[in-house]
Amino acid sequence: MIWNESVEEEQRLQLAMEPYDEFLQRVQDIHRLGALQGHLGWDQEVLMPAKGASSRGEMMAWLAGKRHEQLIDPRMGELLAELEGKALDEDRAANVREMRRNYDQAVRLPKSFVETFAQARSEALVAWQSARSASDFEAFKPSLRRLIEMTREKIDLLGIQSTPYDVLLDEYEVGMTVEDYDPLFAGLRERLVPLLEAITQAQNTVDEPSMPEGLVFSVDAQKAFCEAVSKHMGFDFEAGRMDASTHPFSAGLWPGDTRFTTRFDEVDPFSCLYAVMHETGHALYEQGLDHEHRFTPRGAAVSLGVHESQSRFWENQIGRTPAFWKVVLPWFRANFPDAPDWDEHALNRLANRVEKGFIRVEADEVTYNLHVMLRYEIEKQLFNGDLDVDDLPTAWNSMFKEWFGIEVPEDRLGCLQDIHWSMAAFGYFPTYTLGNLYAAQLLEAMAEDLGDVDEMVASGDWKPMLDWLRPRIHQRGSQVSPAQLIEDATGSPPSPEPFLRYVERKYSALYQLG
Amino acid sequence: MIWNESVEEEQRLQLAMEPYDEFLQRVQDIHRLGALQGHLGWDQEVLMPAKGASSRGEMMAWLAGKRHEQLIDPRMGELLAELEGKALDEDRAANVREMRRNYDQAVRLPKSFVETFAQARSEALVAWQSARSASDFEAFKPSLRRLIEMTREKIDLLGIQSTPYDVLLDEYEVGMTVEDYDPLFAGLRERLVPLLEAITQAQNTVDEPSMPEGLVFSVDAQKAFCEAVSKHMGFDFEAGRMDASTHPFSAGLWPGDTRFTTRFDEVDPFSCLYAVMHETGHALYEQGLDHEHRFTPRGAAVSLGVHESQSRFWENQIGRTPAFWKVVLPWFRANFPDAPDWDEHALNRLANRVEKGFIRVEADEVTYNLHVMLRYEIEKQLFNGDLDVDDLPTAWNSMFKEWFGIEVPEDRLGCLQDIHWSMAAFGYFPTYTLGNLYAAQLLEAMAEDLGDVDEMVASGDWKPMLDWLRPRIHQRGSQVSPAQLIEDATGSPPSPEPFLRYVERKYSALYQLG
Repeated sequence: MIWNESVEEEQRLQLAMEPYDEFLQRVQDIHRLGALQGHLGWDQEVLMPAKGASSRGEMMAWLAGKRHEQLIDPRMGELLAELEGKALDEDRAANVREMRRNYDQAVRLPKSFVETFAQARSEALVAWQSARSASDFEAFKPSLRRLIEMTREKIDLLGIQSTPYDVLLDEYEVGMTVEDYDPLFAGLRERLVPLLEAITQAQNTVDEPSMPEGLVFSVDAQKAFCEAVSKHMGFDFEAGRMDASTHPFSAGLWPGDTRFTTRFDEVDPFSCLYAVMHETGHALYEQGLDHEHRFTPRGAAVSLGVHESQSRFWENQIGRTPAFWKVVLPWFRANFPDAPDWDEHALNRLANRVEKGFIRVEADEVTYNLHVMLRYEIEKQLFNGDLDVDDLPTAWNSMFKEWFGIEVPEDRLGCLQDIHWSMAAFGYFPTYTLGNLYAAQLLEAMAEDLGDVDEMVASGDWKPMLDWLRPRIHQRGSQVSPAQLIEDATGSPPSPEPFLRYVERKYSALYQLG
Repeated sequence: MIWNESVEEEQRLQLAMEPYDEFLQRVQDIHRLGALQGHLGWDQEVLMPAKGASSRGEMMAWLAGKRHEQLIDPRMGELLAELEGKALDEDRAANVREMRRNYDQAVRLPKSFVETFAQARSEALVAWQSARSASDFEAFKPSLRRLIEMTREKIDLLGIQSTPYDVLLDEYEVGMTVEDYDPLFAGLRERLVPLLEAITQAQNTVDEPSMPEGLVFSVDAQKAFCEAVSKHMGFDFEAGRMDASTHPFSAGLWPGDTRFTTRFDEVDPFSCLYAVMHETGHALYEQGLDHEHRFTPRGAAVSLGVHESQSRFWENQIGRTPAFWKVVLPWFRANFPDAPDWDEHALNRLANRVEKGFIRVEADEVTYNLHVMLRYEIEKQLFNGDLDVDDLPTAWNSMFKEWFGIEVPEDRLGCLQDIHWSMAAFGYFPTYTLGNLYAAQLLEAMAEDLGDVDEMVASGDWKPMLDWLRPRIHQRGSQVSPAQLIEDATGSPPSPEPFLRYVERKYSALYQLG
């Protein structure tokens, strides 16, 4: 459609085009608008001047509007219908399948609903921010109630297949329902709660290394250290950047340009390091996508869960091990000459402290999934059960007491802590745990193919790990569903067992558990 | 057109819309695409990773194509025709006038021509780069000949009003023709050539301060010094940024976000300073546009010539004066404690050295316009006369000898030095001189309103100067033609006299000329 002389010529060209080619061009246009949103989003978090905020919001809304407009174009519906009647290869079929899903969702939500919902979210975000500061759930309650009501309306508009909450779960991880999550999570909880108890008791008898008061890790040294780690993981700095932002994130803009961010805390080098490893994991996925399929679903990451598996794989399964610390120890010492004479075991202990904290984003690998499951249970009761917003803090706090054994002292440390609900992102949380489960499955499958992964990490040659992930995860994009992708790569459907084996082995070794 | 449910609804909404509102929405869409090109262009020059180049080129071409497609939409033609029959206020009339101009140009160039021309330019750029390195005009000649031939074809397609070269001149500065430029430039040349001669002779008798060998001006100190100057000029750093790039430029992205760049040379702090003052001049114009009219011609800078007047005003008329150096001297000394004990007069002399060099971009205020006029004469002969590409170097060198009194030793220092012709930007150069002339006219008019400008600069209170420019230049955007804007602001049409008075007075004082 570029450089056409007129609408007539465009229509003439469309008639002459194969339906798939016309469809592809439209799909790429939509994805290019999305990539521009990603680019402006990166800029906004990293370097936009303060007074640019209002125009930026306007530009983002404009791009979202244009994208939506092109997605719901009736011609898209016609092309989808036509292509669904044809025999297509796997890649083309994937694009048609994914665009059908996006198209159906988009056309089912009326303009007025989308606008009102966006407005309600934007108001709820403001209300949540001050409610959290003041730890005042009552101040957030009206906004939250409204978002839940509008989300129920959205569920009705999108059409319920099985249970209402399934509509939300499917939005963030295609194909996943409560029927899939319930057994995964039940299996996890059964064994994580006692493991946590055992660790807590063992901690009293183990001597933990600690961070000396007043020790400063300079930003420049952290940057150099973390860049070296990211590069060693395989991130191509000629095809991407690392910058600083308040909240670390990664943005796979387009081929040859993948960017991630981190944050620097001068008294804690681990915060930056694990943010970098986490975001590099995401970024390696983006750099490894098949560029031939750029700007189409086939060439894009398949799901939040699979994306999170890549970040958690590198952050935790590789990064929080003595084998990792053995390799990076010389870089650590060179960049932080004032640090105590820690060896790889001390550093690994520092990087793996388990604490029964209240905050999800600060949680270790054992408690993290308990935090997620708690939110899943609450959401399920909100949408499939009869939990009222009035009773939400009580429900949260009693579940927390049961699983963690401690009392939530205020809602700021409880049900007000996360931003997600203020954005009506109900159904999002479970993908975090999926990422952990997938990562553990991938680790086991990788070990079967490549031999002991700890040994490989300790050898310093990490390339075979990335090479193993490339064709099995990265290059496949959205060729198949997330669950299918994991099963193809690991030989098993999503399961909690590999993760449980992994944490039980890891923490038994760390705390010499029975 | 945002959030429409369907093309039918869009059409229904269009029917219900006032024609001007529909026109405005289309105009804003086109300008938003252009603003996105500007944003990606900034990113490309400042921080894009190397391997992002290919995707970036593709994205830029896609945006250009989309913009063109929307511009030539037949509905745009209908709306223009309809609005031209209506009584509109000055602002709306300006938007219709400017879009008519853009529309007519766009629809007159067939798709095949635009594509072939883009390809030819892209090849010529590569040929020019290696030809310039080797100082080998013959290697560039075939590409240049092709571009000239295609430009002649473009002139025919666009339609000749008076002379062929006028079509090109008008493209870069609306309304300017050889009939306008010839008398302006002749008046300039007559007095600049003898002035240059007088300065050259005086230079032998004057003791010039010089830069000590080996003195280093750190990048951090230059950055701090230049930011202080830019801020003092009135640049709002909360609504913009200063960064580094190979070639300094400024980009007025959208309200609240105007960015400029500079470059750092550790042995020459003046290069960075005057790049910053030049680009801040451009950026102040962008920050001062009327945001109510954002994303329309009315809310955009009116022309290259007027833009250049803003940069040259601050860079030269303010920045290269003893009054300026008096104010910034404490900042200079604080940031560069190792520099010699220069006073404002020594610094001003260092900043104003006149040299008969071969290179336009390194030229002082006296020779700069001679460089430009030479290119103007060559271009005029190429398109209106009978100069053949074969004879271009000879024509260049003999004119240079006549005006500058020195022989061009090789084409790298002569007709191969500028990038413009390899991009087929014929007709662009004269706008540089227009900028200088407009700046001098503005300086005289400002002095009439505010009193002696030198005194005001020396007082350190520069705000009245910016406040004077705001309503007369910046806020008016493209409300009227460039020449009209200058006449409204200064009481006189474009003229060389104020500029000549300015340089003669300035250099007579610097070199104690008779």
